[in-house]
Amino acid sequence: MKVLDRLAACFERLPGVGRKSAERFAYHVLAMPLKDVEDFADGLLAARRDLRACGVCGCFDEADPCAVCSDESRDRSLLCVVDRSGAAALIERTGGYRGLYHVLGGHLHSLPRTGRPQPRVKALLARAEKDPPREIVLALPPSAEGEATAAMLARMLKPLGLRVTRLGVGLPAGSELEYADEVTLARAIEGRTGL
Amino acid sequence: MKVLDRLAACFERLPGVGRKSAERFAYHVLAMPLKDVEDFADGLLAARRDLRACGVCGCFDEADPCAVCSDESRDRSLLCVVDRSGAAALIERTGGYRGLYHVLGGHLHSLPRTGRPQPRVKALLARAEKDPPREIVLALPPSAEGEATAAMLARMLKPLGLRVTRLGVGLPAGSELEYADEVTLARAIEGRTGL
Repeated sequence: MKVLDRLAACFERLPGVGRKSAERFAYHVLAMPLKDVEDFADGLLAARRDLRACGVCGCFDEADPCAVCSDESRDRSLLCVVDRSGAAALIERTGGYRGLYHVLGGHLHSLPRTGRPQPRVKALLARAEKDPPREIVLALPPSAEGEATAAMLARMLKPLGLRVTRLGVGLPAGSELEYADEVTLARAIEGRTGL
Repeated sequence: MKVLDRLAACFERLPGVGRKSAERFAYHVLAMPLKDVEDFADGLLAARRDLRACGVCGCFDEADPCAVCSDESRDRSLLCVVDRSGAAALIERTGGYRGLYHVLGGHLHSLPRTGRPQPRVKALLARAEKDPPREIVLALPPSAEGEATAAMLARMLKPLGLRVTRLGVGLPAGSELEYADEVTLARAIEGRTGL
């Protein structure tokens, strides 16, 4: 059934979805009410059509510049660097950050190294030089790739005389010591704070 | 961004997809080439439109009766009961089964118990009575729900004088004893076969 394989291949392009899950999703669609499938197809097209990357920060939004960039009440002296637009949305939801964002669009290691420039990194440096923020928060994941990217960005940004910070690494709030892996626990000890 | 939430809600309807994965998928779509998003939307509609449940066995196919049901070379004295059409596709891929199928559309425990009849179970009993197969293989998952369903079906089918079997339960091929859970190992001992 070529039509099923074709749909499974579409699902397989989603992050973290393997062949078996993709096939399961495709079969699920066959048994869905037609109305729901039409809504799904329309939702894909509408989202792709109505949302675009903000020309300033790179976050997806209906407007360009985006709602955050054009909000005059935001703290323009704080710049938060994220790997993708979804990460900025997660930070927004905490309600604890009132600065601006800059979407990198990936990690430096996964971007091509030679020849082609890294446009979003160039844009970050240009932004930081043109209107230097008080602080740049590198909100990249505490994974090997994320940390390597943060280290490379810090090496580029610090010579500009900017304060560069990263997210705290440690025990998840509400968790037990027993369930933390050794690296996390070591990082939590290292990053201990005064009371 | 309502348009993004709407798309995430569509992804969240897929089996095993939670809110966070659904949002991640939605953001991924925003960054996909327009052509790929159009293919995805079209793939959903095409699959839902071109494939339908076979009137005989319930498997999804372009044709009704499906390719398996209308294949004269299949062994019509063997009937394999599966919970969903995707399970039949997995068995087909092994190349080790040449009989027919019957899709149940779920597990008996998850189907409504009272009032409404269970149409696919009724259809199975009607098929088995009209043209009794040599053997009915209950290819349901060895989970609590699957085993309860198999037991209930066996109680209905055996009085008709039919041979009812189920899939073997034991160690996955190529695995080590250390990695099997105790229930699986106990079932493997119980289901040991002569050499």
